Amino acid sequence: MANPVYLDDISAGQTFVSSTVEITTEEIKEFARHYDPQPFHLDEAAAAASLFGGLAASGWHTASITMRLIVTGGPAFAGGVVGAGGEVNWPRPTRPGDRLTVHGEIVSVTPSRSKPDRGIVEVHCETRNQRGEIVQNLTARLMVPRRPAT
Amino acid sequence: MANPVYLDDISAGQTFVSSTVEITTEEIKEFARHYDPQPFHLDEAAAAASLFGGLAASGWHTASITMRLIVTGGPAFAGGVVGAGGEVNWPRPTRPGDRLTVHGEIVSVTPSRSKPDRGIVEVHCETRNQRGEIVQNLTARLMVPRRPAT
Repeated sequence: MANPVYLDDISAGQTFVSSTVEITTEEIKEFARHYDPQPFHLDEAAAAASLFGGLAASGWHTASITMRLIVTGGPAFAGGVVGAGGEVNWPRPTRPGDRLTVHGEIVSVTPSRSKPDRGIVEVHCETRNQRGEIVQNLTARLMVPRRPAT
Repeated sequence: MANPVYLDDISAGQTFVSSTVEITTEEIKEFARHYDPQPFHLDEAAAAASLFGGLAASGWHTASITMRLIVTGGPAFAGGVVGAGGEVNWPRPTRPGDRLTVHGEIVSVTPSRSKPDRGIVEVHCETRNQRGEIVQNLTARLMVPRRPAT
């Protein structure tokens, strides 16, 4: 098991790269049935006639896969990956068969003024497909504990 | 079927309220196994000992349920609910048994300068639990077509 990463261990400019996962047609439709039941996420023919021009994953599906890649392959933050919020955008669709990898970079580290045992880490995560094209930008604010006094 | 809502039909200050859905323990764990496998989303005892003090849904799960409530109970935007991106935050956790409702308000409507057939609608969506507490704020940018010339 990796050593836990505390706020004190993190500085702007540090980077990480996750593992890579392929997204399947069936997974795209299954997620859409539960959480985003729109024709362009559910049906090839309807998707071809839509703005997307073909089946595309829900943006929230791309975000959820990104979270899994961060949780399973990002820094082993003490206390886990606990997001307070963030800004997300999807410059292009995620397609069936795309192989996604998250490239993360620490933007800033801010100790809390009111809670001395923690702080906020801002991290920018690009989710890229197999051609290196960005399918999602996420700038997330994570709560990370400070190293306990020994 | 509802009449499609075009950019021309939308103005700042318009509001909507979705239907209400209950989130179960099993659904929280199922989502977490797929997309956010961390102890505080998967196991009651581990969650009780965590920052969350009890089982909590992944923020991306709350976001995904919010999307379903918007798609199935929000305005019938022509072309569907197509998000370009947005800003999300989670002021408090979503808990097992919470009943979630989305309260939406149009913030701004901006016709595209480069693409005269569409524009961007900014909408603020509060996802509230059964006590009226906000579990998620989402300000989303949606692409909405203009009404075609007749």
